[in-house]
Amino acid sequence: MSTGFFGDISKIKYEGPDSTNPLAFRYYNKDEVVAGKRMEEHLRFAVAYWHTFTWPGGDPFGGQTFLRPWFNETMEAAKLKADVAFEFFSLLGSPYYCFHDADVRPEGKNFAENTKNLNEIVDYFAKKQADTGVKLLWGTANLFSNRRFMSGAATNPDPDVFAFSAATVKTCMDATHKLGGENYVLWGGREGYETLLNTDLKRELDQMGRFLNLVVEYKHKIGFKGTILIEPKPQEPTKHQYDYDVATVYGFLKKNGLENEVKVNIEQGHAILAGHSFEHELALANALGIFGSIDMNRNDYQSGWDTDQFPNNVPEMTLAYYQVLAGGGFKSGGTNFDAKLRRQSLDPEDLLIGHIGGMDCCARGLKAAAKMIEDKALSKPLADRYAGWDSAEGQKLLRGEYSLDQIAQWVETKDVNPQPKSGKQELLENVVNRYV
Amino acid sequence: MSTGFFGDISKIKYEGPDSTNPLAFRYYNKDEVVAGKRMEEHLRFAVAYWHTFTWPGGDPFGGQTFLRPWFNETMEAAKLKADVAFEFFSLLGSPYYCFHDADVRPEGKNFAENTKNLNEIVDYFAKKQADTGVKLLWGTANLFSNRRFMSGAATNPDPDVFAFSAATVKTCMDATHKLGGENYVLWGGREGYETLLNTDLKRELDQMGRFLNLVVEYKHKIGFKGTILIEPKPQEPTKHQYDYDVATVYGFLKKNGLENEVKVNIEQGHAILAGHSFEHELALANALGIFGSIDMNRNDYQSGWDTDQFPNNVPEMTLAYYQVLAGGGFKSGGTNFDAKLRRQSLDPEDLLIGHIGGMDCCARGLKAAAKMIEDKALSKPLADRYAGWDSAEGQKLLRGEYSLDQIAQWVETKDVNPQPKSGKQELLENVVNRYV
Amino acid sequence: MSTGFFGDISKIKYEGPDSTNPLAFRYYNKDEVVAGKRMEEHLRFAVAYWHTFTWPGGDPFGGQTFLRPWFNETMEAAKLKADVAFEFFSLLGSPYYCFHDADVRPEGKNFAENTKNLNEIVDYFAKKQADTGVKLLWGTANLFSNRRFMSGAATNPDPDVFAFSAATVKTCMDATHKLGGENYVLWGGREGYETLLNTDLKRELDQMGRFLNLVVEYKHKIGFKGTILIEPKPQEPTKHQYDYDVATVYGFLKKNGLENEVKVNIEQGHAILAGHSFEHELALANALGIFGSIDMNRNDYQSGWDTDQFPNNVPEMTLAYYQVLAGGGFKSGGTNFDAKLRRQSLDPEDLLIGHIGGMDCCARGLKAAAKMIEDKALSKPLADRYAGWDSAEGQKLLRGEYSLDQIAQWVETKDVNPQPKSGKQELLENVVNRYV
Amino acid sequence: MSTGFFGDISKIKYEGPDSTNPLAFRYYNKDEVVAGKRMEEHLRFAVAYWHTFTWPGGDPFGGQTFLRPWFNETMEAAKLKADVAFEFFSLLGSPYYCFHDADVRPEGKNFAENTKNLNEIVDYFAKKQADTGVKLLWGTANLFSNRRFMSGAATNPDPDVFAFSAATVKTCMDATHKLGGENYVLWGGREGYETLLNTDLKRELDQMGRFLNLVVEYKHKIGFKGTILIEPKPQEPTKHQYDYDVATVYGFLKKNGLENEVKVNIEQGHAILAGHSFEHELALANALGIFGSIDMNRNDYQSGWDTDQFPNNVPEMTLAYYQVLAGGGFKSGGTNFDAKLRRQSLDPEDLLIGHIGGMDCCARGLKAAAKMIEDKALSKPLADRYAGWDSAEGQKLLRGEYSLDQIAQWVETKDVNPQPKSGKQELLENVVNRYV
Repeated sequence: MSTGFFGDISKIKYEGPDSTNPLAFRYYNKDEVVAGKRMEEHLRFAVAYWHTFTWPGGDPFGGQTFLRPWFNETMEAAKLKADVAFEFFSLLGSPYYCFHDADVRPEGKNFAENTKNLNEIVDYFAKKQADTGVKLLWGTANLFSNRRFMSGAATNPDPDVFAFSAATVKTCMDATHKLGGENYVLWGGREGYETLLNTDLKRELDQMGRFLNLVVEYKHKIGFKGTILIEPKPQEPTKHQYDYDVATVYGFLKKNGLENEVKVNIEQGHAILAGHSFEHELALANALGIFGSIDMNRNDYQSGWDTDQFPNNVPEMTLAYYQVLAGGGFKSGGTNFDAKLRRQSLDPEDLLIGHIGGMDCCARGLKAAAKMIEDKALSKPLADRYAGWDSAEGQKLLRGEYSLDQIAQWVETKDVNPQPKSGKQELLENVVNRYV
Repeated sequence: MSTGFFGDISKIKYEGPDSTNPLAFRYYNKDEVVAGKRMEEHLRFAVAYWHTFTWPGGDPFGGQTFLRPWFNETMEAAKLKADVAFEFFSLLGSPYYCFHDADVRPEGKNFAENTKNLNEIVDYFAKKQADTGVKLLWGTANLFSNRRFMSGAATNPDPDVFAFSAATVKTCMDATHKLGGENYVLWGGREGYETLLNTDLKRELDQMGRFLNLVVEYKHKIGFKGTILIEPKPQEPTKHQYDYDVATVYGFLKKNGLENEVKVNIEQGHAILAGHSFEHELALANALGIFGSIDMNRNDYQSGWDTDQFPNNVPEMTLAYYQVLAGGGFKSGGTNFDAKLRRQSLDPEDLLIGHIGGMDCCARGLKAAAKMIEDKALSKPLADRYAGWDSAEGQKLLRGEYSLDQIAQWVETKDVNPQPKSGKQELLENVVNRYV
Repeated sequence: MSTGFFGDISKIKYEGPDSTNPLAFRYYNKDEVVAGKRMEEHLRFAVAYWHTFTWPGGDPFGGQTFLRPWFNETMEAAKLKADVAFEFFSLLGSPYYCFHDADVRPEGKNFAENTKNLNEIVDYFAKKQADTGVKLLWGTANLFSNRRFMSGAATNPDPDVFAFSAATVKTCMDATHKLGGENYVLWGGREGYETLLNTDLKRELDQMGRFLNLVVEYKHKIGFKGTILIEPKPQEPTKHQYDYDVATVYGFLKKNGLENEVKVNIEQGHAILAGHSFEHELALANALGIFGSIDMNRNDYQSGWDTDQFPNNVPEMTLAYYQVLAGGGFKSGGTNFDAKLRRQSLDPEDLLIGHIGGMDCCARGLKAAAKMIEDKALSKPLADRYAGWDSAEGQKLLRGEYSLDQIAQWVETKDVNPQPKSGKQELLENVVNRYV
Repeated sequence: MSTGFFGDISKIKYEGPDSTNPLAFRYYNKDEVVAGKRMEEHLRFAVAYWHTFTWPGGDPFGGQTFLRPWFNETMEAAKLKADVAFEFFSLLGSPYYCFHDADVRPEGKNFAENTKNLNEIVDYFAKKQADTGVKLLWGTANLFSNRRFMSGAATNPDPDVFAFSAATVKTCMDATHKLGGENYVLWGGREGYETLLNTDLKRELDQMGRFLNLVVEYKHKIGFKGTILIEPKPQEPTKHQYDYDVATVYGFLKKNGLENEVKVNIEQGHAILAGHSFEHELALANALGIFGSIDMNRNDYQSGWDTDQFPNNVPEMTLAYYQVLAGGGFKSGGTNFDAKLRRQSLDPEDLLIGHIGGMDCCARGLKAAAKMIEDKALSKPLADRYAGWDSAEGQKLLRGEYSLDQIAQWVETKDVNPQPKSGKQELLENVVNRYV
């Protein structure tokens, strides 16, 4: 029984590349097998509850543009929102969704009421999941919207806020566990600073380390089998966010001995804001062994804030999924659309259209990437380029069997005078363009 | 006996704030005691050989503007350059200098000739040092200018380039050791990539890890007591440099077990290019225990490349030296001016004027910072802000004596509902302005 | 009779540079004469109604942090807000204020109600102004917050929105005129686009040209003697704002024949976002003859959005006021603090502290700039540098008395071979540092 | 008779999308008719002499990587370079090329020698053009590399440099005219400033205005029928370049009464550096009636300097050519590859590969754009969105037949209360993705 919110739109179907139906997939054909797996299993799409059902369309210069019947802090409204959300997942054919506590339950007057509200809605979701087959990719806690978090959650100067935050995460981990979530995410919303003048960096990093350890300990205690994920972001809302980028998170994990316990959830827009390409962050996470999941979206290259747009550039998607596949593909992770409509996109159908376009782009990117891997289009030239390091001498060098002075001796004696070889960047760029 | 290059300019003197003599210090009074130490000992100024004596004034759209009589790849020219350089150090009263091998010796046709040339000039420098009392803050190897390094040094796909680079570093460490250098620096000139399409990130990071271990092992072998320093930079010349910023270097050191062996040399301009304030990088290095030295300069806030200008903003210098002093001041490190004249500043005296202005700014910053520390102008409010964490309960929380569910239980039972307190940013900014 | 909002704080006084009282001026001494005028007359400070009394402390990741008793869309609340605002102006000693219609009146259900509400509050303000002596620097219309403006005001694809916007501006011009405002400002809040895909650039620029002409015509019709000001901004909220920067606005004015009717209100933060220094925008407006007024604030150099912080860097303020004074100082314009507290600065006194710090910075900058001008510290070297153009031949060249081939003939015949002279940038930077 | 530089590579052919030959076109089929014209006539490709034949591969941290036999400042080398260049044009099938004087002739010791050298090479080119059928898209003068231009050319504080620059432009215009060039370009290499402290903005803008007038006057005098083009760039080499972006150039042209005489040559990389998308600059130039030609390349989105890479993102190319076609296509302008190989791309064939990839991208973009226009895929929804303005009332509003108070009266009386409509951005983005 439909909520009627989406009018007479019926389940989105795959119609192939030639379709001009804006409410059909042109590339995402969930049962099509790519590189030995169904596309649905490869891509593991999820819808983000916050952007899709909770965001009112505001920006720093204007308020609500979306008029949704469920915009109200009541349990009734929360259930109507859930009804529409699961209807949306089904129409779209998204196998997963993701949420923060604050997206799904009305705000209570204190922790106990928040917990009670969350538990009630979790029961409601459980039934919805059973009815629709839609699953939870990950849950998380919103530790940044309420004014109590204005100076941070784990990194707050007030230990009571740390405690409140920890308690909230506990309830969200319970909820995620109960709903069979496959990961639990921590995005450091206000874990950072506005000014160093009032910030004790060392204390705050220590607090954050303790907090993450609490989470990992609790995961094991309750037997949660999902992955704990940190989502890097360099800034916004704060001037400096502690989980700046993949490299920073890696150092933080190493410092706290958690590099085998925690992985990263990488967002395109956050990569861009940190001065990196999306594929860089993915490749680095692979190289460091901490790749977990992705938040798919796109940041406007000319805007200095988080624009969270739907992805639409297929060549870029191709490079991203190339890294995902090169690292072995998703395990517990997936492709979560942390993307929101532009605030002028008022129609209910726009919610579907945004996701359809994004899913089609991802599907095209995935297919192109899979083909490049199959053809060894990039991996063959790469192996050739580094072949010297696979020689016996190269391996000994790398294993540390020669000291600096031994190497110097050898260079001098043999008059080693290496000649540069073309890096072939343009050739490789053209090769990629054969696939997209 | 003067080279005559600086005409009749005599030793730069301190004349006090009211002086209008462009060739006098107005704030840098080397023997004045600030916070218990002479300014000269606090600031430990060094002149960078490359920018000051080797750079011809070129940029990507034009070549040489400076016409120096020593611009020539001969040993004779190298010695003339050294004569002028040490004359400059003495005129300026800079207690230290820094150099790359390629700055000081003519380029040879191979490794052996480079080494021979370097050794000859090192002997020449040793005598100069003895004559003038000027010391070496640090030495380093130029592994980026010659075309053999175009695809990286340690991270080159060709192990021969790795070997050539290692051999070169060996000779530069020897030179630094011989000259009594107090640190040895590695700036990853082309350790990075232009495109991920032809780059094996994991291999290159492993190569770089091995390289750094070679350096540390050799340091111990020869009994070099100085500090090994890595200088972070996010990009330029490459699209992505592996030593992106302090946080990235920290993760790299941890990965390679070198966090107690290697520290960082932080440059203002590189911090800016990485999206950080200079004081952020300094504060973070302090918090992580890896602060070593600074490359003082300034990046134009509106330019996206490394502008390496002389610093001139006293409030910014104050925040920088505040972090230096808060971390206990320099040990083996110092203030190296990695700053170059604008290419239109053609006159020999401009070299002095640039450094004088920079030294005066640093001196003003140092004095303001020392006074803030003495007055506990920032540290007192900071301690108050985090006081809750010093309580017995705060400490237990931080030590991990409570589990996530125990904390949640406590929050629920006690109805913990923390109220935010003003962060007082504007107040603290005004306080800083009382000191500058 | 006080509202009690600011507790027992009394009128802020000048106490001199040595004061440590956070609620006193250390540099802004309104009656002190600088360059022949009282500081109050030079600086013409104004408080921005929106940031100071209307902004709830929200950002894209969290809502209200400030709990003000007047946050309510009723006339009663609007009057309480006005009471507090004028009390604030008096405590601070700000001679001026600025407002948007939406800041001061409750939002009505339609245009007529908005107008009625505005008129009622204007009467209330008129009385307040008379009582306190505080004056209106400028008024403006908020054509961006309400969802009706989501696709622009003058540049909306729907002519009804253009009409609604024009009608609203008419009421705001009337209000400004009635309150004796000295300028009327247009900031193009949503005059721009999110995507070119749905934008007809030519149409929108034409609409905007017509709109500005309507404003100018109406100004003359009602005899408003103030200046019409456009405030440039490059982006945010939209991806591209049409009034990008001073140069863009100048072109737009020329295109519409309005370059003698309209001037610019330049904001520090907007200049930074456009890739310019603040002093560049000021200098350019002077060079083009369209300088009007300034919105004083500061953008975080590491943040890509409009941070609207209080200014706190005196050297930067000095360069800004140097341009203001070099252009002859403010005529109808002034220094409006388009600056807001950080959202963690919750205390009522923070509102005063932020403004006091900003005013002191401006005062220091003004005094330093005035002294530089008096000493011809920059203008003398500048005149010398361009002296060649003041020669008879230079003037003829500039007036167009030689053709290209005549010049070529002359260069060839005379073998003109100009030698470059030092630009002396570091010297001049050091000179400025003598004044700050 | 071949120079042998390109070995046994023969003329590049179109082999269709399935070709894997790196030395064949897959999309650029010069005689294929698109939207009524052959692709060659649409795209009007040109090769840039400077990047392709003159640039040695240096960057600010390293020198020459390319070892070309013609790197020598002699007439003989210049002729060898010309031989290779025209061979390259023929192999590639590029109908046009572009050059600066300094690219093609050895640097002389003064103006007279430069002129003599240029004239000699122009004669050589004329013969080459006749032999090969290759034509000159545009010529220009290099007024930025030699140290005499370090403080600007037209905007130099020294009128002798202005004169030298004017004389040089005269010779380059003569050369362009003689070679049948279809445009003459001015890129303001060092027309800008490093610091405002030593810059008189008003004087320099006036000098630049005079200079441009000289050029226009001389064009008419010699009967040159080509178009005078200004190429905007926001910064680099200088901190601020006067021809910042299209909007700035427009204002400058209006100020100097030249908006009907001069058009713009828009470069992708420069647009990006100015904070704009390429398509924005194209659309704006169309809207302002000053679109002339394009410099095709791509700036790395994560680098803050001019990277001048070959374009490789087809969706972006599509949006660019959409604007070109929407404005009626090129008249005298064309697609000049102001793109250079990465400095590691050492092989002669890399020069061809870079251009082939770029040309294929452009061809794909052109075809997609042409189809979108044919289908009215974007223009139909656009016309619908603005339809209200085509009504009689809308037109009257736009023509200025109503005053501000009349409009207000109408809004109040009719209770105009416009309701926002969806901007459909995601839908339109998906539509574009149907074409690429």
